[in-house]
Formats: sequence, structure tokens, C-alpha cells
Amino acid sequence: MAECIAVMNAGSSSIKFALFRHSSDHELLFGGQVEQIGVAPRLTVKDSDGETVLENEWKANELDHRTATRTILETAISLLGGKAVAGVGHRVVHGGTQFTAPVIVTKEVVDALKTLCPLAPLHQPHNLVAIESIAVAAPHIPQVACFDTAFHRSQPALAQQFALPRELTESGIRRYGFHGLSYEFVRGRLKEIAPDLAAGRVIVAHLGNGASLCAMKAGKSVATTMGFTAVEGLMMGTRCGSIDPGVLIYLMDEKGLDARGLEKLIYKESGLGGVSGISSDMRTLRASDDPRAREAIDLFIYRIVREIGSLAAALGGLDGLVFTGGIGQRDARTRAEVVDGCGWLGAKLDEDANARAEGRIDAASSQIPLWVIPTDEERVIARHTSTLLNL
Amino acid sequence: MAECIAVMNAGSSSIKFALFRHSSDHELLFGGQVEQIGVAPRLTVKDSDGETVLENEWKANELDHRTATRTILETAISLLGGKAVAGVGHRVVHGGTQFTAPVIVTKEVVDALKTLCPLAPLHQPHNLVAIESIAVAAPHIPQVACFDTAFHRSQPALAQQFALPRELTESGIRRYGFHGLSYEFVRGRLKEIAPDLAAGRVIVAHLGNGASLCAMKAGKSVATTMGFTAVEGLMMGTRCGSIDPGVLIYLMDEKGLDARGLEKLIYKESGLGGVSGISSDMRTLRASDDPRAREAIDLFIYRIVREIGSLAAALGGLDGLVFTGGIGQRDARTRAEVVDGCGWLGAKLDEDANARAEGRIDAASSQIPLWVIPTDEERVIARHTSTLLNL
Repeated sequence: MAECIAVMNAGSSSIKFALFRHSSDHELLFGGQVEQIGVAPRLTVKDSDGETVLENEWKANELDHRTATRTILETAISLLGGKAVAGVGHRVVHGGTQFTAPVIVTKEVVDALKTLCPLAPLHQPHNLVAIESIAVAAPHIPQVACFDTAFHRSQPALAQQFALPRELTESGIRRYGFHGLSYEFVRGRLKEIAPDLAAGRVIVAHLGNGASLCAMKAGKSVATTMGFTAVEGLMMGTRCGSIDPGVLIYLMDEKGLDARGLEKLIYKESGLGGVSGISSDMRTLRASDDPRAREAIDLFIYRIVREIGSLAAALGGLDGLVFTGGIGQRDARTRAEVVDGCGWLGAKLDEDANARAEGRIDAASSQIPLWVIPTDEERVIARHTSTLLNL
Repeated sequence: MAECIAVMNAGSSSIKFALFRHSSDHELLFGGQVEQIGVAPRLTVKDSDGETVLENEWKANELDHRTATRTILETAISLLGGKAVAGVGHRVVHGGTQFTAPVIVTKEVVDALKTLCPLAPLHQPHNLVAIESIAVAAPHIPQVACFDTAFHRSQPALAQQFALPRELTESGIRRYGFHGLSYEFVRGRLKEIAPDLAAGRVIVAHLGNGASLCAMKAGKSVATTMGFTAVEGLMMGTRCGSIDPGVLIYLMDEKGLDARGLEKLIYKESGLGGVSGISSDMRTLRASDDPRAREAIDLFIYRIVREIGSLAAALGGLDGLVFTGGIGQRDARTRAEVVDGCGWLGAKLDEDANARAEGRIDAASSQIPLWVIPTDEERVIARHTSTLLNL
């Protein structure tokens, strides 16, 4: 009898996890994370009310991704006090062109996912370490891999292609897109609360430290702003988003940057943090009266508005706009400024509704509905895990 | 008494030139070019009826940019049969942030333009060699520099900025934009033939071997697709246009490409040529029944339609669309396919009108006017030269 589902989301320096009771609505029991792996590892676990139930710390060399995964598994088993973990679902960043839906993990699946590591060198290896650690520690627990890229495989070929030589496209240099589990959750929720809109042409703005937009037609992704990597598209917390590729060549020639130097620049030193020179955190920038903070926010908004225009073109028009992600859910001013820039598409905000963090936020005079829908990637993974494992 | 204006447009392997009679409408007398400099230099000159009046060839080492410039000057003087060359106007690709309008060439101007060579290493040095060669050979003839970037300096700061650290932005890594002389010509012509539209929100599509779009509000550039270099934005004949910067880092890591290898890939081996594997020439692709030719054209169109959406967002709506450039003026099917993708913006083509290569081409039911306006960069340069030199 299935009792609990564990969800793991391994990043470059952290592993998030969540424990759900197996049921039709997947009640959250505990959630937590190990942060600062390799620096000052620290475990925090909260219960479903957000109360901290467990904390622990290690020295830098006492916990790596592998041992952190086992620690999480042991912690989960202990927290569940006898209830069985019936399956573990993983967020895996890259499914390439092959994985267009979640799969049960087998040795063959792991081998196939390993070949994709060069496509996401900062994340994919950590996802696989988590899977392999659990396979060793608890070989009786079945595992499921859910991909950030899979949701976008419904896109027309043109949206997935760069204008590079066809041999490079065929070798896998394509626009994969990311944040797919978030978009999948939002699509599902939209179908419940606004089925007519869900059947139309919708742009979902997942705005967080990482940020992207997805254009959906009848619930299927037709275009997205992130491409081969999670750096393309919108300006983000520390990522530059789209830039002229000629800039990279210039920086190699004139500033002597190599691949690691370029990577650090475009992933870590740009975006809100780089433009403001103050912080990569929207809350800090909103609280600042430094004009550089305002400049960074203005560029963030401008780029979103421009990309919404581009995605509206991919959709052939726009029936509605949905905000999600940390900034999308919590920063009413970002929503107001984005909607203001989309006035030409008929969008108009209800200021009072926008002050709330969830639900419909368009004015009566708006030509298109506007929504805030909190995302929940862990819940999508739990659902897929239950379904695939027939729990 | 001013009699003739010479216009020079020096590229990486060719120098184009034109001779105009100085008058209110700058009548074209002769036009020509030296092609394949460094390979198999070849001079061709045609008169105003398009008849070839002069041809010459050299061995590879007999003619470089410097001697080719002098040859053109001598040829011009001989062709003009005693009429004086009152001034020479140059297309200079890069004016940086400093040059927001054409200028009379002085030593100080040349020195300032030399500092911009790293921003356009494939073109700027050749532009300056042409200027310096004429200054030596004919120091009595005044010269004027006209910039491809200047037209875009009216843009809001946000449109000219990447989301890179502010020190890099301040050091000159900005979105300069190009094709400015073409956009300036088209704007001028639009003011004459459709003054109401020229006062509104217009996108001009300069589609040729190089291709870009410019969004103009009341005749001023507010955004453009090319950025720091002429490789950003649309897919072109051999250039990839915008791609995820992460692709370049991947190619450095996995394929061992260096700056020159990346440059060759994104400037020379991509675009229509790279995607089709057949040809970078739209005419060849249109004549082909190979599905790869169709795929390349489809991607070219798709990218234009997406970028038109993005620029419409920058404008806050669209009042009209203008086609120019080699493909924009001569390929009616490209126009038809782009307009088809812009149906959501109210664009609808008149098929018969579109079969012509110039003038208004929208259907009566179109919500926005559509135009074909042949561009003439040389004429803009001749006009600026006359004006600045008080001829």
C-alpha cells in the first residue's frame, strides 16, 4: 500500500526535497533543503505549516551531493515514522530530444541521461548523483525522472531551432526550453479555474531568480524564451538573458575571457545584480532609492514586455497572461509594470486585485484576463511519480 | 562651384562607390565597385542606365584597400571629364556613442574613429583606410563620414543596453544598431509619400544578405534588432542572428572552437546558407524544391515575424510596415509570408500590388498600411555630404 512520495530537486549547491502523502491531492507533509553544499552545508526541514522541525549543519568537507542525498533519504524515513516511501520523483533538468515525458528510472535511462550532461554541465550531473545515491542506498524504492525540458517538445520545429548549420542542429544544439514542470503545473491549474482561457492563447511568465516566458496554445507550449541553456531570453537575477553573440567574441579578443570567464559573467555577474551593482534580489532593489536599482528593474520589465510581444507573434495573438514564480507571485509592482507595458495588447490591471498574491487581477475594462497562479513544481513531480508507479 | 559628390562604401573585401551630380535631387552619374580585394580584384563601373562603361582586373597582390581607393578616385576624376569632385562622403560602420550625426572628417575625427575599430574589426579599419587614402592623394577634397549606427542614438537607454555588469555597459558594450543610413533614407521617403504613417509607429524591415528591423516612432528609431555587432537579431544570409550565448560556451568546451572559429561559424557558416546547406542566396532557395531550402526560408520568416512582435511591443502597437533591402524589395513571396505571419497585427496583403516591387501593397481590408520602399544608402550619404560641406 503506497503511503508517501519523496521529491528531490538537486541543484548546483543545494538539494531541495518534499514529502507528500500519497493521495488524490498529494498532501504535503514535510519540505526542506540542504543548502551551501561544499561551502557550509546546512539542512532545514519544515512541516506543512511552515514550522521548522529539524536543522543540522556540517563542515564543508563533511557533506557532498552524494552524502547529502543519503542524509535526506534517512531524514525522510525517520520523519515519516514508519510510513513507507513508495517512490522518489526527481526533477532532472535535461531530457534532450529523447525524453518528452517523465519516465521510471532504469540503468538505461540513467545512461541516456548521462550523455546529456554536456548540455547542462552545472545541473545534470547533480541530478544523476541524487538518483544513483538513492539507487544504492535504497534499491527497493522505485524512482521517476521528470524533465524541465519535456513540456516544450510540443513546439513546432522552427521554435526549437537556431539558424546554425544543420549538422550542429542535428547534433543537439537546439532550443530545449526549461521551467517545464512549473509551466505544467500552471497549465493544470488554469484548466481547473479558467478552462476557456486554458484552451486559448496564453503566455505564462515564470519570474524568479531564473525567469522565462512560455507561450501556450490550447495548453501546449509553442515557444519559450529560454533555449539551449537557462541563460537565454529574459534578464534574470544574475543572468544576462539574450545578448548579441558578438559580445562574447569581443570579450574573448579584447578582455581575454575564456569559457569559464564568459560563463561566470553571463550566469553569475549580470542581470539585476550586474546592472544595479547593488543586489540580484528584486526585494532589495524595490526597497532601494538608488537610481541604479530603478534602472535594473526598468530593464527587467522592458525585456519582459518585448519578449511578450515576440511570443504573442508566435501565438498569433494573445488571450491571457499568467504570472508565477517568486517575483511573479510576490511582487505586485512587477506585475503592474509588465501589464502597463502590455496595454497595447489590451491588458489592464485591477489595482486592488493585484495587491493580492493569487487569482484574477485584470480590470473590468481589460480585453484579456490576467492571473496570478502560484506554481508548485514538487507537486507535479509527486503526481507523475504516483501515476507512473501505479501507486 | 560644386559639381560632383563621390560616395564610398568600403567593406571587408569590396569598395562600392557612386558619383552624383550636385543638385537638389543628386542625380546619379556613375556607380561601381572593386570586388574581391585580396583574391581577384575586379573593377566594374556602370552609368546611370546600368550600362557597363569600364571594367578592369588585377592580380591578388596588385591591389589592396588603399590602392583600390586611389584607383577609384582616379577613375572618378577621369569619368567626370573635368567636372570637379567637390566632396567625398563615406559610409562608416561605427560611430560609437559619440557620433550621432554625420561629420566633416578631420584628423581628430579619424583618431576618434580609430578607437572604435575593436567594435567593428571587420569593417571599421577598411572605412578608415579609404578616408586616409583620399586625404593623402587629394588633400584638397573635403570628406564627410556618415555612420550606420547614428540613426539609432535616439533610442531610449533601455533599448541600447544589455543586462551585463554596468562597467561593461559603460565601457561601450552596448546595442548600437546598424543599417542606419538605409533606415534614414526610408524614413525620408516615407515622409514624402505617406506623412501620416511616417508620424506614427512604423517597423521598417531591411531584408538583404544582412537583415535587420527598425521600430520608428514619429520617424525616430526606438529599437532595432542588430545590437553590438551586425550578427544579432534576424537570421541572415550566412549569419545566425540571435542565439543563446550558452551555445558559444558549449562550442568552446565541447568542440574546441576559439574566437576565430566562433566568428566564422556565426558570421559565415550559419543563416540561410547553414540551415539549408544549399545556398545563402534567397533566389537560389526560392528556386529549389529541396525541403531543406524550404526549412531555411521558413525559419527566416518565422524569426522576422517574432521580432516584429517584439518591436511592436517596443512601439506599443503598430501603424504600418515597410519592406526594403535586396530581399525586401525583390522577393514578393518573402513579403507575402511575413505579412501572413503579421495577420494578428491587422496586416493583410493585396496580392496584385505585392507583385510590383515598389509602393503600397496592403489590401483594402488591411488594418495597417504596408509599403515597399527601395532604399538608397549612397544617396543619403551624398545629401549629407552636400549639406555639411555647404555645397
